[in-house]
Amino acid sequence: MSFKLTILGSHSATPRVDAAPTAQVLEIKNHTFLIDCGEGTQIQLRKFKISFAKINHIFISHLHGDHFFGLIGMLSSFGLLSRTKTMYIYAPVGLKAIIELQLQVSETKIGFPIEFHELTDSKSLLIFEDKNVEVYTIPLTHRIYTNGFLFKEKPDLHNLCMERILQYPEIQRCDYFNLKKGKDFVQSDGSVIANEILTLPPKKPLQYAFCSDTSYQPRIIPLIKNVDLLYHEATFTSKDEELAIKTGHATARQAAQIAKKAKVGKLIIGHFSNRYRGFHDHLMEARKVFENTELASDGGTIIVN
Amino acid sequence: MSFKLTILGSHSATPRVDAAPTAQVLEIKNHTFLIDCGEGTQIQLRKFKISFAKINHIFISHLHGDHFFGLIGMLSSFGLLSRTKTMYIYAPVGLKAIIELQLQVSETKIGFPIEFHELTDSKSLLIFEDKNVEVYTIPLTHRIYTNGFLFKEKPDLHNLCMERILQYPEIQRCDYFNLKKGKDFVQSDGSVIANEILTLPPKKPLQYAFCSDTSYQPRIIPLIKNVDLLYHEATFTSKDEELAIKTGHATARQAAQIAKKAKVGKLIIGHFSNRYRGFHDHLMEARKVFENTELASDGGTIIVN
Repeated sequence: MSFKLTILGSHSATPRVDAAPTAQVLEIKNHTFLIDCGEGTQIQLRKFKISFAKINHIFISHLHGDHFFGLIGMLSSFGLLSRTKTMYIYAPVGLKAIIELQLQVSETKIGFPIEFHELTDSKSLLIFEDKNVEVYTIPLTHRIYTNGFLFKEKPDLHNLCMERILQYPEIQRCDYFNLKKGKDFVQSDGSVIANEILTLPPKKPLQYAFCSDTSYQPRIIPLIKNVDLLYHEATFTSKDEELAIKTGHATARQAAQIAKKAKVGKLIIGHFSNRYRGFHDHLMEARKVFENTELASDGGTIIVN
Repeated sequence: MSFKLTILGSHSATPRVDAAPTAQVLEIKNHTFLIDCGEGTQIQLRKFKISFAKINHIFISHLHGDHFFGLIGMLSSFGLLSRTKTMYIYAPVGLKAIIELQLQVSETKIGFPIEFHELTDSKSLLIFEDKNVEVYTIPLTHRIYTNGFLFKEKPDLHNLCMERILQYPEIQRCDYFNLKKGKDFVQSDGSVIANEILTLPPKKPLQYAFCSDTSYQPRIIPLIKNVDLLYHEATFTSKDEELAIKTGHATARQAAQIAKKAKVGKLIIGHFSNRYRGFHDHLMEARKVFENTELASDGGTIIVN
């Protein structure tokens, strides 16, 4: 099992020539999920050669412009490019009205359905599930209603050890699927053959948690416990902690504290304020608390396996 | 007198890495006018080093996304950058609702007033005027309600010829302003000294006409007669004329026909469809009809004086 995260934009607020606002693409199992969609996201997708056609699910954390202003343009372009497949959008209530008003006023008829899942709940919810992946909201604490997202692979099937299985004549081909699902085998005399004798377990399913924008919020730790990769916003460094509190953002140290307490595999920090010339201080500050930290960079990819 | 036009984007429909949608900056007299505002316009402004603070008037031709999707992000950025001056926006009815809904839903409080002048008229109207410049709408013919814009310098004052003036003892200092405005001087005996004896005329005021998006529409010719610079869309070449008719656009040849009939000084063609690899054919086709034609290019500037 593995997933690949591509950072399309990792900066906050005003987009600049070399600093795109938040957008990420998560390629996990057979899905290409888009997470947030700041202005220019469609151009970043082209720049980093990510196929438009593969994106069928978009997750929007909150309705500050640097996280969604690129959506209407991207959807319009998908329409111009003759998309027909349904687009599923998971976003706070309000986005549907914004998109629909713009399509209506501009008399734009896009040739594919958009299915909005408008979010209003303050509890973590399962918002997407198929046979491979589950996606949960992670309620965050910002100036406006905001969710992070937890992407969880479902366990693969067990691998059959045919050599062992053939030693038990009662096990028929029709029993294999139950074995793959991890079930023990009960023989006609009532004796049980443990699954681990008959199969090799699948690889551990992977998890990715996206947490932006948010102030320091330890309440999320149980939700993101042991995830393999955590993206946590770190708009400021600790010298601007007061500003972080005032604006509902986090510092690099706070992001690392969350990562450490949640025992995550790796931490990526981003959503940097443009008040900083560079982000070395963010990195050093976070690494003092949680060593396995990296800076997000536009166009950067992280493969977890 | 002179003006400077900077093309921020000159392509149609979907924005690409090196092809920005329509946006232009016209620096004329003491104004910096923004014309259209496709997605990414704020980034183009930064790229081509045009001061955000100087823009106080925005003219939007029509509400197709490639002409206005960059507006909400740009206005939000102006707010984040602590703008306080009023922004005047001239646009088809509907844009105000789109901008206000997004500001409301995102709980964005921008610290400057926006004054919308919503356009609905199908006749050419004077929509802006001060002592230096007039701006008129140019009703265009597209799939949706669309205006071009005609920017006209007002005549400068005449220059006094002091050597001549001093030969007439009746002319006092308090008469100078009337002379500068071009008035003749009437002496006490009723005799008239013609203005051209006493002053040198100012340079001819300049005019710029922006016409995009539009099908071929000879009706606009009287409105743009003799303008010094005409930007006319040329989405297609003549081999795709049927497509131009179907989509409410013009070909390069048609743009040149308009330029020729209106006897303009220079023609710039743009709003190119992304179906073409390059635009040499557009240029050759237009130049056959109107020699003084240039292709718009993102970041290109044209100075007229």
